[in-house]
Amino acid sequence: MNHYPKSVLDLIENLSKLPGVGKKTAERLSMHILRAPRSEAEKLASSIITLKNNMRLCGKCFALSEGELCSICSNPGRESSIICVVERIADMVAIEKSGGFKGLYHVLQGVLSPMDGIGPNDLRIRELFTRIKSEHIREVVVATSTNVEGEATASYLTKKLKETNITVTRIASGVPMGGDLKYVDQVTLKMAMEARFEK
Amino acid sequence: MNHYPKSVLDLIENLSKLPGVGKKTAERLSMHILRAPRSEAEKLASSIITLKNNMRLCGKCFALSEGELCSICSNPGRESSIICVVERIADMVAIEKSGGFKGLYHVLQGVLSPMDGIGPNDLRIRELFTRIKSEHIREVVVATSTNVEGEATASYLTKKLKETNITVTRIASGVPMGGDLKYVDQVTLKMAMEARFEK
Repeated sequence: MNHYPKSVLDLIENLSKLPGVGKKTAERLSMHILRAPRSEAEKLASSIITLKNNMRLCGKCFALSEGELCSICSNPGRESSIICVVERIADMVAIEKSGGFKGLYHVLQGVLSPMDGIGPNDLRIRELFTRIKSEHIREVVVATSTNVEGEATASYLTKKLKETNITVTRIASGVPMGGDLKYVDQVTLKMAMEARFEK
Repeated sequence: MNHYPKSVLDLIENLSKLPGVGKKTAERLSMHILRAPRSEAEKLASSIITLKNNMRLCGKCFALSEGELCSICSNPGRESSIICVVERIADMVAIEKSGGFKGLYHVLQGVLSPMDGIGPNDLRIRELFTRIKSEHIREVVVATSTNVEGEATASYLTKKLKETNITVTRIASGVPMGGDLKYVDQVTLKMAMEARFEK
């Protein structure tokens, strides 16, 4: 790697800290940036800095926000009596894209993971219960992932939430839409069969 | 995509201009930068700017350089009577990594490609001949790629170079080292057979 001048090596090193970017990719990206117009490179650099300067977490739901409250929490058109609990901001964005939810969100900023030393106090769980007490919440939809950590977090939350007087729901599991049954894994199929409903 | 605040959308847009980075990857990278320590993000941004500010092409061989001449052209230990002609800087770096060449380079900054409207005047070919006239060059190794454009460029260069009084060579083609014969393509095998040599 020491066949490049120092500025190139520095950029390669910094780019390869990004997830999924190895030395080879970082090298290719650096070469692109080198050939690209100066304005494009400057725009990229300044948007990184702007992101770090402007972005904060919403004071209420811990989603991304450019102000005190995020665009969803400050939107009076959203149904404010229902909260969807997700692990990460990307999950919230995925649900928003689906258009299937019109309520508010609460981003835990992670999942329970005893192996990594992440317990309930490391997530935004206390803040969720503060919201349930102070806002008029009717229902909490637990929309953590369906993997081991997500399910464990969902169980923990469901148990704790049932102590309050609100409806607790979990997103449905089953065969993905447009999916071919023979390609669906057995656990999902079993789940879909158990959760069958009358039409 | 409009579920993210503007700063995030801006970064996603700028990142997805990089080669091999689509919207999904740009989204993932942006989320990483968002979570990463401020110092890491600042280092990345500043190394992009430093690269654009410090990097120039070597005045002699058109490789990357931080000064007037690159580290190879200004190294008195290199054999200065032999020039290896490559398409791009990355090719030069690949040859340097191999350690198989101790002479100087000349980076064409592209290949002949009539389909894309790239002719001899768009490459650093004139500068190569100027070097041959002014420096004491004994041999030129044409190390363009072995694809269609690379071969065409090699033919063009070989023909023009033979008009001068120097040795013109082409890098060897054949079975890659460590390669299993049954996985080598037929064109390469034919080439390797034709170029067989006595041991």
